Amino acid sequence: MQIIKNILPMQEAAAKAKRKGKTIGFVPTMGALHEGHASLLKQCRKDNDISVLSIFVNPKQFGPQEDFANYPREEKKDCLLAKKEKVDIIFYPSMKAMYAEGYLTYIDVESLNSKLCGQFRPGHFKGVATIVGKLLNIVSPDILYLGQKDAQQCVVLQKMITDLNWPVKVKVMPTVREPDGLAMSSRNKYLTVQERLQAPILYKALLQAKKAVTQGERDATKIRYLIETLIRENSASHIDYVECVDSNTLLPLKTLSGKVLIAIAVKFGQARLIDNIVLNIS
Amino acid sequence: MQIIKNILPMQEAAAKAKRKGKTIGFVPTMGALHEGHASLLKQCRKDNDISVLSIFVNPKQFGPQEDFANYPREEKKDCLLAKKEKVDIIFYPSMKAMYAEGYLTYIDVESLNSKLCGQFRPGHFKGVATIVGKLLNIVSPDILYLGQKDAQQCVVLQKMITDLNWPVKVKVMPTVREPDGLAMSSRNKYLTVQERLQAPILYKALLQAKKAVTQGERDATKIRYLIETLIRENSASHIDYVECVDSNTLLPLKTLSGKVLIAIAVKFGQARLIDNIVLNIS
Repeated sequence: MQIIKNILPMQEAAAKAKRKGKTIGFVPTMGALHEGHASLLKQCRKDNDISVLSIFVNPKQFGPQEDFANYPREEKKDCLLAKKEKVDIIFYPSMKAMYAEGYLTYIDVESLNSKLCGQFRPGHFKGVATIVGKLLNIVSPDILYLGQKDAQQCVVLQKMITDLNWPVKVKVMPTVREPDGLAMSSRNKYLTVQERLQAPILYKALLQAKKAVTQGERDATKIRYLIETLIRENSASHIDYVECVDSNTLLPLKTLSGKVLIAIAVKFGQARLIDNIVLNIS
Repeated sequence: MQIIKNILPMQEAAAKAKRKGKTIGFVPTMGALHEGHASLLKQCRKDNDISVLSIFVNPKQFGPQEDFANYPREEKKDCLLAKKEKVDIIFYPSMKAMYAEGYLTYIDVESLNSKLCGQFRPGHFKGVATIVGKLLNIVSPDILYLGQKDAQQCVVLQKMITDLNWPVKVKVMPTVREPDGLAMSSRNKYLTVQERLQAPILYKALLQAKKAVTQGERDATKIRYLIETLIRENSASHIDYVECVDSNTLLPLKTLSGKVLIAIAVKFGQARLIDNIVLNIS
């Protein structure tokens, strides 16, 4: 396993692989790796000749009041996990390499950037689109691996890649969960013992919503109320949103039909957790 | 010479060339080709295994009051010039291929986008950056060729490429001029006979400014006044701007020093013409 810290050597390694006709799979992360990332790396390993993992805590996707400074950095642990998953290259750039003084260029996926989490994290998806655009130009992957847990991120990045014609496929892998259903997230570390015990209500509420839909419920207001009530009654948390939206446009639905994303964002103390399910409703 | 009208075949042709270890040179244009474009194509041919020319009148870089509808389209003439310059591939996409319904993604080079022409053409450089970003992903060139006539475009695109880490070099080629000094431009076609006779004053005024600098003048206000006076006294035109700026940051200078861009934009009837010179002042 090679660790590359600068942009040019990473681009040269990618160009060299391409010339040899090798395929490159890419998993971009902010480190603090967990089993969710591991599942992306496993699929990446399986599909491609070369697996590249990037670790970069991207300041441009954090708001001024957010957790950039406290976001967990666990270089050694991350390297162990990467090695276990047979990563070929870890791309581990410095802040200065990625955002030199006088940096000016941003990619923005309009409209999608302001939906769901975008209402609560202005500029977040612009930061995500920009860093992933940069990383695509540095790593030149054939396939990009993303986790379904960050549903809006998947939609925004797929749209960016389609609109700007990046020659890369996107594979979205299912959310990996703790045994009690809590979606794996680097931010789960922020939970107190008490909050950790309550947090699984997010997924339980989503499953209850799924059950209601299976039993015939199509009214988005009722589904949202069901989820909100379960979360409120079973935790001391603050709900940012519970929404039922079209899974491509992220536009809110009144009546559930087609491919529906039910997405939630809830604050437990210092931790803002997100989760979602996608339902195909005929 | 091959004419490719769709995105995927162009990407496949580029990927195939890369696998064979061939280099790709790229000249993006809006068609209505003239000797300025020809000079880019000649250099492109000289430097690379494969020369790609794109022709696409990009609606996103025209303001609502601008000349998108009237911009000259000369497909047959352009193909003849391309053939003469030994272009390998003309990429000639449709509007629908480039901007499908529901298009949402834009690239913006902040700060640089609002200087010089940016003050008079809001959104123009966002449109330019976006289309060139798309074309870089479609053509995968090793070298991108741009004309110095569009000085701000060169600065904006070089900054975009640096910031977003596109693995491509930029070569800026000198402005090609008519025998009387008028910079070649597709928009010269809009000039009436009378305006065409007056338009060379732009370059003459720039040369007078250069002469003044050579003779020791360093005061930007005086240089601007010199140019403006010459243009006003010798033409019936409207000056959008005459500016002396740092050639990298495009920030206005009070005292000329270093690499200075003297840039002008002047309206002659229906034609908005731009021109510039770069001076290295020690």
